[in-house]
Amino acid sequence: MKVNCMNKRKLQIGVIGDSQIRSDLQYKIAYEIGQEIAHSGSILICGGRGGVMLAATKGAYDAKGISIGILPAGVEDEELSPYLTVRIPTFLHWGRNPLVVLASEGVIACGGNIGTLSELAYAALYDRPIVCITSIPGWSQEIGERGSLQNPPVSEQIYHAETGIEAVKKIIEVISTSK
Amino acid sequence: MKVNCMNKRKLQIGVIGDSQIRSDLQYKIAYEIGQEIAHSGSILICGGRGGVMLAATKGAYDAKGISIGILPAGVEDEELSPYLTVRIPTFLHWGRNPLVVLASEGVIACGGNIGTLSELAYAALYDRPIVCITSIPGWSQEIGERGSLQNPPVSEQIYHAETGIEAVKKIIEVISTSK
Amino acid sequence: MKVNCMNKRKLQIGVIGDSQIRSDLQYKIAYEIGQEIAHSGSILICGGRGGVMLAATKGAYDAKGISIGILPAGVEDEELSPYLTVRIPTFLHWGRNPLVVLASEGVIACGGNIGTLSELAYAALYDRPIVCITSIPGWSQEIGERGSLQNPPVSEQIYHAETGIEAVKKIIEVISTSK
Amino acid sequence: MKVNCMNKRKLQIGVIGDSQIRSDLQYKIAYEIGQEIAHSGSILICGGRGGVMLAATKGAYDAKGISIGILPAGVEDEELSPYLTVRIPTFLHWGRNPLVVLASEGVIACGGNIGTLSELAYAALYDRPIVCITSIPGWSQEIGERGSLQNPPVSEQIYHAETGIEAVKKIIEVISTSK
Repeated sequence: MKVNCMNKRKLQIGVIGDSQIRSDLQYKIAYEIGQEIAHSGSILICGGRGGVMLAATKGAYDAKGISIGILPAGVEDEELSPYLTVRIPTFLHWGRNPLVVLASEGVIACGGNIGTLSELAYAALYDRPIVCITSIPGWSQEIGERGSLQNPPVSEQIYHAETGIEAVKKIIEVISTSK
Repeated sequence: MKVNCMNKRKLQIGVIGDSQIRSDLQYKIAYEIGQEIAHSGSILICGGRGGVMLAATKGAYDAKGISIGILPAGVEDEELSPYLTVRIPTFLHWGRNPLVVLASEGVIACGGNIGTLSELAYAALYDRPIVCITSIPGWSQEIGERGSLQNPPVSEQIYHAETGIEAVKKIIEVISTSK
Repeated sequence: MKVNCMNKRKLQIGVIGDSQIRSDLQYKIAYEIGQEIAHSGSILICGGRGGVMLAATKGAYDAKGISIGILPAGVEDEELSPYLTVRIPTFLHWGRNPLVVLASEGVIACGGNIGTLSELAYAALYDRPIVCITSIPGWSQEIGERGSLQNPPVSEQIYHAETGIEAVKKIIEVISTSK
Repeated sequence: MKVNCMNKRKLQIGVIGDSQIRSDLQYKIAYEIGQEIAHSGSILICGGRGGVMLAATKGAYDAKGISIGILPAGVEDEELSPYLTVRIPTFLHWGRNPLVVLASEGVIACGGNIGTLSELAYAALYDRPIVCITSIPGWSQEIGERGSLQNPPVSEQIYHAETGIEAVKKIIEVISTSK
């Protein structure tokens, strides 16, 4: 009964970060991440709302890619990105953060405050590889430079990148080699 | 900032029912539901495992459609349908049932036992239209004939159908007119 | 390291039903359930809000008992019962329903509409014994008379009672013998 | 209808940290935290398992206090603390971490690795005051010294303490003045 259709499945890559953009550079990098995920033929996973999520889903949208939003409430939400291909309402409030990470085979963090920190911690709990953008202030920079979420730090699956294209190439490489 | 990309979004239709097939007819109808969802250009949402879910995702797969599985645990699961296009692990155990319904703009029930009953109740709680297959024994038949999940029963969004094709046409019609 | 403190632990008994009282009799029975749970030295578990929950927690409160509310959002909630000893906010919306049942070693249903139906289905999924009050209209009556949540019905852990006192005695007996 | 029973409600104080004890000092402080929570007449909230949770619940138990465990799965769990007064199974896996924090009006962190980091981030997301034990290595020390979970850091509700008694006094003071 079981057949192998796995080889046709697209990679699912998560993008996390601030829900309000802090700088033009952050917008540019987040957009580039979404665009590059689409160009690679992968699916973008995110929390489906503003800031880094909006920029990344717009990047994916413009490149004809697929993006999926795991939403904190329903679709009646003023902050919803209009660029989502699929919307998954959860009504779990912040409790949806672990689901964003779980739906991703690997995660790229771009800036980010306490919501992003919760997602980074969950990525470590659920063994998802992480690429942190270190050129953008926020938890992605601090954890990227620290090199670990473990405490005390141990060498593990925290990678870092300066640009969106570099980040996507890295996470695809890490996911592919860990399979 | 807000643009209208909504008109290009595909409908998301949930399929729920027994995790073990009870009869050839149930398999045939579940398969047909998945096939028809794909033919209509919609996305199939389900719990991602065996029985009705497996049959429906195979139907969608054979018809080159997209199906999304909201999983109770991770992807290391012997009962996982191999026909899923996108897999959303949750590690919420039975707690993922409400999410299957929430990710669906309308739900088709085909047979089903207590897990399906929990999803039907959640579909009513979250105001998702429901089509119950009444030709298959289980909660879809009993609730389809009862005509309501409310208690005492009131006329509401419970529709019924005999075949898979009829069920998909009905749920698309109901979702489309309720928008 | 492991010591046996188990024998001192109080039973945890769930009470579910309409969030708005339908009749004086329903209020009376729900109040009596809470009172009798307290008299038995058990802990009352519920969703922490109005209707049957309010009546039962008032019964427990007046009898100097302990009640715990598993809340759909936070404690800033106009519908919160003021009689709760412990409040567990979840911000999981209706997603908290399975948790009410899981926190209970056995469940008493008193009336109830679709929210209660979701909890009854979850009680069956998680193997919690159930006593349904059949003297009050709603899902407790219909499922109590049906005698099963399985479909097709099988003889299982659905018990029924006419009064609150009878219901509490029955659920304590069932929980105690199943240990 | 609404009456004021609030003034009799006990404080609910969360204790988080490593699920395996790292040092005798950590055990001693965690035990002391539980003991002091009990002496203050408050309720101890935790994840209900080993390490810091076990030590703290033993402290509360020896001092005749009440402790509540919000469990990742069910009660059939070898790592469960035997000192819990109330057990709340959730079957949400790591997804129960936000619930531990939400059930607490304030949180004390004692050491801790990635699970604790996820809980600290959620405490900030849900505006729960935090006291970090800085005499124990782990995220409680690092975040306690950083003084903030925000990024960039801002002065907020992160307090620190060296001993268990000091930590409990501080969190009670902070919760009481913030009401």
